[in-house]
Amino acid sequence: MVKKQMKLGLFLMGTGHHIASWRHPEVPSDAGENLEFFKKIAVKAEEAKLDMLFLSDGLAIHDLSHPAELVRFEPFTLQSVLSTVTERIGLTVTASTTYNEPFHIARKLSSLDHISNGRAAWNIVTSYYEAEAYNFSKEKHLDHEERYERAEEFVEVVKGLWESWEKDALVRDKNTGEFFKKGKLHPLNHHGKHFSVRGPLNSSRPPQGRPVLVQAGSSEKGTDLAAKYADVVFTAQQTLEGAKNFYRKLKNKAAVAGRNPDDIKIMPGVSVYVGRTQKEAYAKYEELQELITPEVGLDFLSDYLGTDLSSCNLDGPLPGNIPLTNGNQSRQKLIIDLAKRENLTIRQLYRKIAGSRAHRIIFGTPAQIADALQEWIENDAADGFNLMFPYFPGSFRDFADFVIPELQERGLFRTEYEGTTLRENLGLPAIDVEHKIQRV
Amino acid sequence: MVKKQMKLGLFLMGTGHHIASWRHPEVPSDAGENLEFFKKIAVKAEEAKLDMLFLSDGLAIHDLSHPAELVRFEPFTLQSVLSTVTERIGLTVTASTTYNEPFHIARKLSSLDHISNGRAAWNIVTSYYEAEAYNFSKEKHLDHEERYERAEEFVEVVKGLWESWEKDALVRDKNTGEFFKKGKLHPLNHHGKHFSVRGPLNSSRPPQGRPVLVQAGSSEKGTDLAAKYADVVFTAQQTLEGAKNFYRKLKNKAAVAGRNPDDIKIMPGVSVYVGRTQKEAYAKYEELQELITPEVGLDFLSDYLGTDLSSCNLDGPLPGNIPLTNGNQSRQKLIIDLAKRENLTIRQLYRKIAGSRAHRIIFGTPAQIADALQEWIENDAADGFNLMFPYFPGSFRDFADFVIPELQERGLFRTEYEGTTLRENLGLPAIDVEHKIQRV
Repeated sequence: MVKKQMKLGLFLMGTGHHIASWRHPEVPSDAGENLEFFKKIAVKAEEAKLDMLFLSDGLAIHDLSHPAELVRFEPFTLQSVLSTVTERIGLTVTASTTYNEPFHIARKLSSLDHISNGRAAWNIVTSYYEAEAYNFSKEKHLDHEERYERAEEFVEVVKGLWESWEKDALVRDKNTGEFFKKGKLHPLNHHGKHFSVRGPLNSSRPPQGRPVLVQAGSSEKGTDLAAKYADVVFTAQQTLEGAKNFYRKLKNKAAVAGRNPDDIKIMPGVSVYVGRTQKEAYAKYEELQELITPEVGLDFLSDYLGTDLSSCNLDGPLPGNIPLTNGNQSRQKLIIDLAKRENLTIRQLYRKIAGSRAHRIIFGTPAQIADALQEWIENDAADGFNLMFPYFPGSFRDFADFVIPELQERGLFRTEYEGTTLRENLGLPAIDVEHKIQRV
Repeated sequence: MVKKQMKLGLFLMGTGHHIASWRHPEVPSDAGENLEFFKKIAVKAEEAKLDMLFLSDGLAIHDLSHPAELVRFEPFTLQSVLSTVTERIGLTVTASTTYNEPFHIARKLSSLDHISNGRAAWNIVTSYYEAEAYNFSKEKHLDHEERYERAEEFVEVVKGLWESWEKDALVRDKNTGEFFKKGKLHPLNHHGKHFSVRGPLNSSRPPQGRPVLVQAGSSEKGTDLAAKYADVVFTAQQTLEGAKNFYRKLKNKAAVAGRNPDDIKIMPGVSVYVGRTQKEAYAKYEELQELITPEVGLDFLSDYLGTDLSSCNLDGPLPGNIPLTNGNQSRQKLIIDLAKRENLTIRQLYRKIAGSRAHRIIFGTPAQIADALQEWIENDAADGFNLMFPYFPGSFRDFADFVIPELQERGLFRTEYEGTTLRENLGLPAIDVEHKIQRV
């Protein structure tokens, strides 16, 4: 039997995923707006045969404690540049369905897919933060339920716009003067609750047919959306049991939605520290942890929980009455559960999550790291991982140089890209849309 | 006295500016979505020391007769790629103020400015076409007056967002843990009729301080906007007298608005055919003209005039009762005036404008072309030109190889870039914003 191989994404984040990474002596503190730095990481990620460069995003400064989120490149412009220094790796942009228009997003993704010869992916999110509403002329943030309702309609419109032009619509016949076959251009004529979009899109069929759809919310509504549409799901999972439950539940939901469960790849985030010994790996973590100031830690936690904790005792427990946020509900619940389960003080809690943003952390030798990843793959807890390197380039270099070869030796990771498009490399089915009659 | 030198932009348009260019034997008919083709043109434009690559845009397919507008790259993604193959030339993106949000546009332009080390420009337009409204959940296109009111507020918000971070706000002090000076980050707190935007922008101060602002509408409202904000004005002018009037009027308006008239560069569009003789140049034009089918010509004219002309006699005059459009009013008037002035039939009219999209056309030897451009520069009819090459790469190559050296010999065009940013190369003043108190 051929071993199941894992899919690996690299979470691009300026100086690194750890909140204090910019203070690490090896890290260029301006990495978040340093284009040459991003290019080098992209090139090395492709040498390591990773599946995708995953770029998160935000439409507001919601919290002054996150240096990586204060100033950063806009995803479409950055990934367009990274497409020029790479040839195979996928390019994932995050774009919110809450404060965007589907026509713009469909078009930019199609353009990125053309530019990269079929390597574009869209991380479909709803905006968490109240602060984003205030940058888009809204008095109030859309509530959780309505955000997901809008997201679903948004995705439908984007998919529909990508089907505007059939594969062979553009004949460009110089002799007859026929540029395209009129019967092979399809307006959309969508009229829904949130959007009315006539189409067609002024971009031809994307090389992938449909850029890869990534989904990153793990709430009930979020997984409903993922089950229907996502090719890839990014999730925060701390324990093997939790991850197995999530995996099983989502694959079942996908089957219920009429899809082949193999066509939805579940990739939990994981923050990795590699050392020659486990002790050395842990010391790398501790070195970063020491750089978190209490002010930053507290701001960070308050922001994730949607509750101001500044008057709480750092060495006491979380207050018991934290109200449900209108932001990222699955993340909030994960953090409250973690504090209870491990009986953590506020200081312990922020130290525990500020470094990894609530994602799983693993420490160890290359073999130990490979074991930890393999365990999840073989136990149907994951199809791959989104690698959230604590600081760049050091912790990524360690992984690329020592863990990737170990995974390859075990047959758990590719030694060469399988195809040229992201869809092919992820092992996803080709898109073959049947255009019935023109939907005019 | 030092001669006034002209500024030159290159209007990027797939196969070329002539509507039938895609049928020209030398032209790759897929140029509109051919990235390598765009890269080659960008590189050659920089070798020719041109000021900017100007990229128009549209948010709908409004007319099936324009092959270049049916499928094309989205401007931010394309210009991000072109930034990687060039180092000095400006990168102008068109972005409509009608169906966009200022936060997105401010951010993408700032990101492009960072990516290109200070070469981004924004061509500020309002959407002409009814068809765009239908792609953005609107039942009705905004009317002319309201579009310009919205445009002005949009520009104010974008400028304000670019001033979020002072130049030296990001200190990134690893020792103290201070990433930025809190007093040097400024929210915007804009509350206006069309927008409420809190800010600040999550992108640091653009390298140019303010990306270059281009304005392209020549109506009364359009020139009001230009006089207040534009660094560069792109306009369609057919005659020397008309251009002089426009130039004088706009420079006066700029002075009335309290600006130095030298700080607003007026660049009419011009379509150029170069030959070894004027006859050869004209033959190149005729070769393209012969490729316009009557169907395409009529569609094109109907679209520009906002009136269906399909039942009119091709060899008769324009109807006298064409109603004022809710689209591009200055362009409509220019076309009606041209038909009257030269007493043209519909067929003659579409042949006259379909090739140049109503911009001035000049034919001649390199010396004659240089004369024609020089005349406008020396008579205060223009500060430069936006070059709309009829077909790529042929007519651009002719210009770059023969007209540019002629202009340089006459001292009318640079032989080397003056600076590294577009603002410097255009001879525009540096942006120095005075941040008074924090506007919280």
